[in-house]
Amino acid sequence: MFLQADGLTIRLPNRIIGVQPPNHRPANPPMSNDTLQVRRIAIDTYHENVAYLNRECGIYRVEGFQALSKIQVSANGAKVLAVLNVVDDASIVQPGELGLSEQAFEQLNVAEGCLVTVNHAEPPKSMDAVRRKINGERLSQDDFSSITSDIAESRYSKMEMAAFLVATGQNNLDHDELLYLTRAMLQSGDRMDWHEALVADKHCIGGIPGNRTSMLVVPIVAAHGMLIPKTSSRAITSPAGTADTMEVLTEVNLSPDQLHAIVRQERGCLAWGGTARLAPVDDMLISVERPLGIDSQGQLVASILSKKLAAGSTHLIIDIPVGPTAKVRQMRQALTLRKLFEFVGDRLNIHLEVMITDGRQPIGRGIGPVLEARDVMQVLQNDPEAPADLRQKSLQLAGRVIEFDPDVRGGQGYAIARDILESGRACAKMNEIIQAQGAKQIDLHPGKLCHEVFAGCDGFVTHIDNFQMAKIARLAGAPMMKRAGVDLLKKLGNPVKKGDSLYRIYAEFPADFKFALDIASQDNGYVIGSDEHIVKSLVAF
Amino acid sequence: MFLQADGLTIRLPNRIIGVQPPNHRPANPPMSNDTLQVRRIAIDTYHENVAYLNRECGIYRVEGFQALSKIQVSANGAKVLAVLNVVDDASIVQPGELGLSEQAFEQLNVAEGCLVTVNHAEPPKSMDAVRRKINGERLSQDDFSSITSDIAESRYSKMEMAAFLVATGQNNLDHDELLYLTRAMLQSGDRMDWHEALVADKHCIGGIPGNRTSMLVVPIVAAHGMLIPKTSSRAITSPAGTADTMEVLTEVNLSPDQLHAIVRQERGCLAWGGTARLAPVDDMLISVERPLGIDSQGQLVASILSKKLAAGSTHLIIDIPVGPTAKVRQMRQALTLRKLFEFVGDRLNIHLEVMITDGRQPIGRGIGPVLEARDVMQVLQNDPEAPADLRQKSLQLAGRVIEFDPDVRGGQGYAIARDILESGRACAKMNEIIQAQGAKQIDLHPGKLCHEVFAGCDGFVTHIDNFQMAKIARLAGAPMMKRAGVDLLKKLGNPVKKGDSLYRIYAEFPADFKFALDIASQDNGYVIGSDEHIVKSLVAF
Repeated sequence: MFLQADGLTIRLPNRIIGVQPPNHRPANPPMSNDTLQVRRIAIDTYHENVAYLNRECGIYRVEGFQALSKIQVSANGAKVLAVLNVVDDASIVQPGELGLSEQAFEQLNVAEGCLVTVNHAEPPKSMDAVRRKINGERLSQDDFSSITSDIAESRYSKMEMAAFLVATGQNNLDHDELLYLTRAMLQSGDRMDWHEALVADKHCIGGIPGNRTSMLVVPIVAAHGMLIPKTSSRAITSPAGTADTMEVLTEVNLSPDQLHAIVRQERGCLAWGGTARLAPVDDMLISVERPLGIDSQGQLVASILSKKLAAGSTHLIIDIPVGPTAKVRQMRQALTLRKLFEFVGDRLNIHLEVMITDGRQPIGRGIGPVLEARDVMQVLQNDPEAPADLRQKSLQLAGRVIEFDPDVRGGQGYAIARDILESGRACAKMNEIIQAQGAKQIDLHPGKLCHEVFAGCDGFVTHIDNFQMAKIARLAGAPMMKRAGVDLLKKLGNPVKKGDSLYRIYAEFPADFKFALDIASQDNGYVIGSDEHIVKSLVAF
Repeated sequence: MFLQADGLTIRLPNRIIGVQPPNHRPANPPMSNDTLQVRRIAIDTYHENVAYLNRECGIYRVEGFQALSKIQVSANGAKVLAVLNVVDDASIVQPGELGLSEQAFEQLNVAEGCLVTVNHAEPPKSMDAVRRKINGERLSQDDFSSITSDIAESRYSKMEMAAFLVATGQNNLDHDELLYLTRAMLQSGDRMDWHEALVADKHCIGGIPGNRTSMLVVPIVAAHGMLIPKTSSRAITSPAGTADTMEVLTEVNLSPDQLHAIVRQERGCLAWGGTARLAPVDDMLISVERPLGIDSQGQLVASILSKKLAAGSTHLIIDIPVGPTAKVRQMRQALTLRKLFEFVGDRLNIHLEVMITDGRQPIGRGIGPVLEARDVMQVLQNDPEAPADLRQKSLQLAGRVIEFDPDVRGGQGYAIARDILESGRACAKMNEIIQAQGAKQIDLHPGKLCHEVFAGCDGFVTHIDNFQMAKIARLAGAPMMKRAGVDLLKKLGNPVKKGDSLYRIYAEFPADFKFALDIASQDNGYVIGSDEHIVKSLVAF
């Protein structure tokens, strides 16, 4: 009668576990069961720690834990917080045991069978600040710092992070609060130090398929002699990230030590950024933001700048593509975003410049790791077939980065970048970087299944939908299937005849191929217009 | 190389599972592995469905699922949504199997071993409306209805619910939106129909320990002949709910059929409300609201009115206690809340009256199921020892309910209620209800461990902290330990001498006892003042 299995009653906040007689047998002498043997449960719960307790366990029964309670597990001074799941199967976890999911077990870092104690977890103190923010208050630097440090220590549940993100989303942060948040996110992790006065970087806010300019900017800038240690993410919702595409050519999973050695030798690198612990709160917030589909300009700025500052950048070009299917759709939004970047960047002592670029269509021809790597190599090799827009945009970005060099005369950056590219020095530098990171046998053939999508009428290409092209490439298998993706044969402004091929879909497996073809047959992502004037105005971005 | 175990890359939105060759062996003919055998995993994950997939499972590897992805599991036309956990232990789930947590397995409602298909879950469509709300838009009835129906169908993750709660919290809902939300929550579940024109109910917004007026109002009102089918919750954060206290005397877990039969016979009942599916979205939102520690007046109104309307109430008294340690601390907040209740109640066609009551201290003497049941029985039995405040407040509430009766002359309700109580008819009715629900052997002795807390100085009781008294009672073991709790010997305004006993702490187990004593020794919850004027002004609430 005392134990209700209805899941509604038994929740005791802030309570400390003590010696308890199990199963309510007060006649027996109290048994010490405040400790449990820890057991690794081979379940991967990603960013969320889960603990498993048998329903027959004395601690569960007496202490009033409940499924989804947050508990604190302690052993030898180490502590982890975890969400509780209650187990009715002793083969998974026995009454005297406490199971921990893979990540939680690793975080606790004790041997299996070790004794652990279990407490109700105190809710994170900084949630008070989140509640004040929900109530419309302005938060201080200390508030943001205590929030990010609680998040970094896994004290926030996913729903607490969601509450924080909604409370600080949209226009709910003023300029100063955004600065505090960025600084707090930066301080939540490690910070790289390259021991040089000028550490260059470039970053695009994303959303444009095929936009692999980093793989051209890095070799050009490094060939010029400037330090540009570029770390990139893998694709999360896109058909390829720079790390995915670079991985076609070379190793990208480099330890921080390897990274430093390569950068010292080559002046640049193109690696995956996940090995270092840079602004970890950023990754944790993204893991909530993404499934919720919420984002705000403030959070974008804090995310990018905290990561770049943690990576040790001193000089940074931010690329903001604008277009009807880009992340930023209108010039005035791009300007607001630029000001936010500048405000925070100036106060955090990073030399930052924003380039607003043409985001009306994918950059280059290929979408997907192998196809994009092919585009990049064509540009580096000065192949006459190389996509002109990828080349041009990369040279502009590289030129802006090179102008950070105090020895370069204002306005000369672009010409220097072009010289480096045309002379073959950029290509040579890229090959050195590829070798240094660990070259692979390179085979840039796309997937063996191929389908052409044709124009339904005569006219001009007036619109290419970035989202739709990315979706088709993802369904075709990119980025996991490196050879899958889309290869664009027509770009904005090109004249087409009915039956002309607009693009090709490549896949490795029939099922992927079918998904991609199905979605392309519903909406092929292209609009063919007849009015040449509209087309001309489009081309003159 | 294609399969990244880093947990960052592989997420394909909105993708449908199809026939896929496992383990990337394109040379082999494609194997059909789009179906898996379902297996019940004896893990209780409360309100969150979890699915378990072996990491070696072809579907996991090819489809790019990732731990914490949301998936849709289908079998025989039934569907459930679940959060994915990835398992590395074939004894928990094998590569050809899909494990489901207990609740998810029950929801899918198919036999073990049955074939199921697995898809990426589409994010709930109504999250668009939540995002619009985050952006400051006003939502329509349709928006709220689609949100609550997605929540009721378990389409929302905890973090999506948190986003909704924060976006609609505080003053973010206008009066009309609050009406829409209440209506939508009401429509998310079943609705009881008592087939009578007047179905009375009373509800307290909570926060005051010992406030067991329902157990007096129901027998008085039912003895008067009005229909009052009272369903109550169990304690969630308090030391006892009405259902917990009633459970000391009789059964409270009644099926809807039993409930109807008892109410037809006795005109009233005092049962646990968890057996019917009344406004289920309310419970789901509370399960997120509570750990986040966020609440708002709007959500309180929507929660209470949707539950009461679903329970079939036509006439309702709302009790809003006001006091420095009550939920509502100031009279102007109580008035705002009253207006909100009246606005929504009027439009949803429930005759609703609000009583603002004295919430400066616990009601009655006992805090904890057995001690509160003792207080209630003393009042019913017209025991001269019965706590006067519990008796008085219950009579006022019962009088207001009785005045809903069109045959009662205005102003006569209180006198009628008092006559029913004093004549013993209320006690007789209570005994009939207890018998009808399933009487228990009643033993109202408190826990065998007892400690007295003494006054540290002479003076008058000027303050009793509701929170602290509730916390002491909970630590002593209430509500799980029915006999545990606190028994107040002094109330506001009482004169005390140094060394007088203020209250007793009762517990069943030494560990609970120690926790309660420790917390009481830090702060015993009482303030003893010397100024008789302050005391007099306090008493004159």
